[in-house]
Amino acid sequence: MSVSDRVRKGMVEGSWIRKMFEEGAILKHRYGEENIFDLSLGNPVMEPPVEFRRELKKLAEHPLPGMHRYMGNAGYPETRAAVAVQLSLETGIKFTLNDIVMTCGAAGALNVVLKTILNPGDEVIMFAPYFVEYRHYIDNHNGVARVLPTDEQFIPRLNDLEAGIGVKTRAVIINSPNNPTGAVYSEDFVHQLGELLRKKEAQYGTQIFLISDEAYRKIIYDGLEYSSVLPYYTQSIIGTSHSKDLALPGERIGYIAVHPDCSQRDELVDGFIFCNRTLGYVNAPALMQHVVRHLQSVTVSVAEYQQKRDFLYDRLVDMGYSVVKPRGAFYMFPKSPLEDDIAFVAELQQWKVLTVPGRGFGAPGYFRISYCVDDRTLEGSLTGFQKAAQKFNSC
Amino acid sequence: MSVSDRVRKGMVEGSWIRKMFEEGAILKHRYGEENIFDLSLGNPVMEPPVEFRRELKKLAEHPLPGMHRYMGNAGYPETRAAVAVQLSLETGIKFTLNDIVMTCGAAGALNVVLKTILNPGDEVIMFAPYFVEYRHYIDNHNGVARVLPTDEQFIPRLNDLEAGIGVKTRAVIINSPNNPTGAVYSEDFVHQLGELLRKKEAQYGTQIFLISDEAYRKIIYDGLEYSSVLPYYTQSIIGTSHSKDLALPGERIGYIAVHPDCSQRDELVDGFIFCNRTLGYVNAPALMQHVVRHLQSVTVSVAEYQQKRDFLYDRLVDMGYSVVKPRGAFYMFPKSPLEDDIAFVAELQQWKVLTVPGRGFGAPGYFRISYCVDDRTLEGSLTGFQKAAQKFNSC
Repeated sequence: MSVSDRVRKGMVEGSWIRKMFEEGAILKHRYGEENIFDLSLGNPVMEPPVEFRRELKKLAEHPLPGMHRYMGNAGYPETRAAVAVQLSLETGIKFTLNDIVMTCGAAGALNVVLKTILNPGDEVIMFAPYFVEYRHYIDNHNGVARVLPTDEQFIPRLNDLEAGIGVKTRAVIINSPNNPTGAVYSEDFVHQLGELLRKKEAQYGTQIFLISDEAYRKIIYDGLEYSSVLPYYTQSIIGTSHSKDLALPGERIGYIAVHPDCSQRDELVDGFIFCNRTLGYVNAPALMQHVVRHLQSVTVSVAEYQQKRDFLYDRLVDMGYSVVKPRGAFYMFPKSPLEDDIAFVAELQQWKVLTVPGRGFGAPGYFRISYCVDDRTLEGSLTGFQKAAQKFNSC
Repeated sequence: MSVSDRVRKGMVEGSWIRKMFEEGAILKHRYGEENIFDLSLGNPVMEPPVEFRRELKKLAEHPLPGMHRYMGNAGYPETRAAVAVQLSLETGIKFTLNDIVMTCGAAGALNVVLKTILNPGDEVIMFAPYFVEYRHYIDNHNGVARVLPTDEQFIPRLNDLEAGIGVKTRAVIINSPNNPTGAVYSEDFVHQLGELLRKKEAQYGTQIFLISDEAYRKIIYDGLEYSSVLPYYTQSIIGTSHSKDLALPGERIGYIAVHPDCSQRDELVDGFIFCNRTLGYVNAPALMQHVVRHLQSVTVSVAEYQQKRDFLYDRLVDMGYSVVKPRGAFYMFPKSPLEDDIAFVAELQQWKVLTVPGRGFGAPGYFRISYCVDDRTLEGSLTGFQKAAQKFNSC
């Protein structure tokens, strides 16, 4: 046996998602890529903003001496300082570079955080529907994932959380705007969440970290303001990336930010730096650190994503789909007209529309649509959604 | 307690190296950076080759559509194919893109490999002096490091290896050219190593992987040819990077290559791809993948490094230091004139020369010099080496 038991188990469990992708690839090969409407991946169709192109060109034409060498494992002080300035602006809390560690994307950030804080068997609470990778990240570092439900709007139920937190609870992961649902948590919610966690810390005499995955923080609609957890809970750790806000998912650039008033902050940040190194990330890619330093206030066109959301949401609702209107990110998570979401996703495939079954996010009976695609793909998918709806919807 | 027991232990054990660095930083601050001769880090002084600059400029000026998006977790097929072509040329073994997974440097490669193959408690054999990070990488994935000695030329002793391999042995890590010693293993050695591993696999009915860390493969002197393990052992896995050969350590770009005839190769490579994703690397940085695709046959000026080696080696020997002449990489690993290598390194610090105690590499009684620095630093360090030698050498 060439791979470990744990890896084999992970691969087998993920194999039906993989099967879907492989079937999608076969469809693309058979019918031509332009005839398949692939809404399965969160791979933004937009190019990075012009400001990104400008910075990259500047560095390519006038390289800084030593700009591809190792730097400290936390990243360039100048980049960390630029992130701190922007976060301070957004949250009203005073960050310095000492609160920031640059990472290989949000995935790198979350792994570094979990590696740093988890002892074997420590529990991490997450909410279904969830980003499926969380399970792997927790397992990588010998933690135990504990999954709690959300309400019909995909907002965590605080009563369930109160009952679910125990003496082994080391962290709670939230993700707003949410992948896969597009839900955005309100200020009132994060306020209550902070209070609950403080209460539970006091009850058990433990330290409970709130890990806020903010990969979609800037992709938010309808004029909503982002409700940061930071003002409401000092044991907060942010993991995020520029994959979505600057449309750079392949470049693996993101950061960890820890609340400046977090207890034992220095030890914690030292732990992050140590784990960034020893997990083999070593540091966030140097060139991207140089570039994003100047782009902290820049974001792709969120209006474009909102138009795509409006277009698709309105039509799906017209067709009879039951969908909670997403307020951010670029996913929609409709109820599957068939109870068996895998069967329904297979039906959509017959109409050359690729989506992902809700089961992949801990939420059977739903399916995920990624609408960060070009308009042609979105428009082309409508026939398939219509036909599948007609087949299974009573309406 | 904010960090886990394991991370705390790692941080405490590494803290005296850290202390050295911090003292170095204080010295630089006090006396000015130009007056401190820092030979402590393997951070190449050279800029990347002109071909790199050209490719980067081309992409910055004429971006490919979607060049910063996600690609498959294994990396771009075109880049994997380019690596395969070059490896085939160098080794005479026919690689295809299916044998290659692009990674976030060699550190990423080694973590992905170990995560993929290790069950808890599996043993990984490595040889002292070793690259200190190996211990962390093995520990990350619940493996057990087993350290074996080398001979007076820093070559692993095959008798000890034969006695050291047991039924729990899952892998052997070698590193030639070696960090910290500069030793380069001969063809005869890798041939015998392959035979021994095959014999032990047969004896125990196990599968033993030979993990070859080839980060310094192209940095080799005296007209030597690199002796690849590939022709001698099919269960070989290469982890490497372009950090040293293209002077890009901050960019985190490297790859895993598995022997095309490795048993269960497909499952193994699927495991690597899965772990590249789930460990949070996701993929090797996209832009660097585009660039290095065209640079597989390009290397920094090795002659420059050889000149630096010759310069420093000759002078250290003249001063009475006992040094095994390095045949590759850009490190030297002299015997410490004082039995206590930490004390000797502290003595060198008094003369404003920064090096690393051998203890950090599992080899007390030695110290490591990095000579990938500019000539001014190298020349400036000589007085300190001379004074320290006079103080402690009998000669």
